[in-house]
Amino acid sequence: MGFRELIREARENKGSPIVLALDLRPDKPSKLMRKASWVLEETAPYICAVKLNFHLILPLGLSGIRPILDAAHGAGLACIADVKLGDIGSTNEVAASYFFEAGFDALTASPLSGWEGGLEPLFKLAREAGKGIIVLAYMSHPGASETFGLEIAGWKGKYQRLYELFVEKALNWNADGLVVGATRPDVIRAIRERVGPGMLIFAPGVGFQGGDARAALEAGADFLIVGRSIVLADEPGRVAKSLLEALK
Amino acid sequence: MGFRELIREARENKGSPIVLALDLRPDKPSKLMRKASWVLEETAPYICAVKLNFHLILPLGLSGIRPILDAAHGAGLACIADVKLGDIGSTNEVAASYFFEAGFDALTASPLSGWEGGLEPLFKLAREAGKGIIVLAYMSHPGASETFGLEIAGWKGKYQRLYELFVEKALNWNADGLVVGATRPDVIRAIRERVGPGMLIFAPGVGFQGGDARAALEAGADFLIVGRSIVLADEPGRVAKSLLEALK
Repeated sequence: MGFRELIREARENKGSPIVLALDLRPDKPSKLMRKASWVLEETAPYICAVKLNFHLILPLGLSGIRPILDAAHGAGLACIADVKLGDIGSTNEVAASYFFEAGFDALTASPLSGWEGGLEPLFKLAREAGKGIIVLAYMSHPGASETFGLEIAGWKGKYQRLYELFVEKALNWNADGLVVGATRPDVIRAIRERVGPGMLIFAPGVGFQGGDARAALEAGADFLIVGRSIVLADEPGRVAKSLLEALK
Repeated sequence: MGFRELIREARENKGSPIVLALDLRPDKPSKLMRKASWVLEETAPYICAVKLNFHLILPLGLSGIRPILDAAHGAGLACIADVKLGDIGSTNEVAASYFFEAGFDALTASPLSGWEGGLEPLFKLAREAGKGIIVLAYMSHPGASETFGLEIAGWKGKYQRLYELFVEKALNWNADGLVVGATRPDVIRAIRERVGPGMLIFAPGVGFQGGDARAALEAGADFLIVGRSIVLADEPGRVAKSLLEALK
């Protein structure tokens, strides 16, 4: 089963489109481990996947990450490494092989790398390993408009925005999904129209960054990425539950 | 002393513009530690800095990286985390605080993040900590031309390439350095003309990727990033020494 089926099935089983960004504030490794396990346990009934970033990967290393991924899989969740990988091909390959071996089902990649000697070896490795690649299409923060929103010249004879080119590339690369900020529902809608129902759309920025969960889903997002408003709460399970109920 | 002074001084003291990319092939953590220490010891007299990427950061974690950075500093080398950081601001901050705390003197960042809520908090943190930020201007691999080489529309009233916009941004952000592939000496030359002598230019892609070391320096690069042709050699010290002698 490929990543798209895996995470769609998790969403179905859990009845939730919420991907938890397990982004904890810096702390000692032992405390981070305990807090991550606790947040995961509290929220697991209300989410379909978990996304890890440098917040845990750097202090814990992959050996410390593995038990968290095992627990997540045990709770029926998909696991995404959100590292926005964007290096030369040989480095992307080495990094991805470590992430996949540690148990991640998919990772995020930056389209700025391009294909030849950039993301091509990464996609090849992911295909062989049955893992997913999610490409950044338009990030959630204000500064993203400076770059993803740039007007580019002469592409297929008409002006186009850089994010639209990234979406075309992701389609050509047969990416499993796109990251499109929940803060930009109009962009989500336009991208959904272009890519059709096959491509997964992940919308981060719900909560702390001001994205509206319902608007993002109505615009065509498949998954909502929610981090700080859940993980920094005193009762993360209760917050995740309320968010899920509000969506229904 | 800021990062620019630090690495310029190391280059002066060592009489070498070579930054070693300590990119080892995947292996067990204990073997990677041994090999990294050995390569560093053998090559230290012929290099001025060391650059670490996911090849070591993922399997060793930051606690395993620290002794390598200590040894590098002890040998008079600057230390760069080449992670092409390009996330939202809060994540960039957390990641950078871990990297700087572990002992890195600088890190690389992706301009795709833009400023507001993207790289701004990262630069602020680096300034406060006296650390450096090196921005990707034009990567070394073939696929980079698909993106960094893109023609953009309507920017200051004239057509321009995306990499030129990244260079303008890096100047406005007061970045310490730029990454420009040694595989593109003409681009190095054009960028050096634009940025003047204050901005550091790091040129990766020498050796395995086909970049010509001497041509990159003559075009205006301050530093050559060399990885596999040194670290995968049977005698890394001898290869580093030969490369340095060939430059003189």
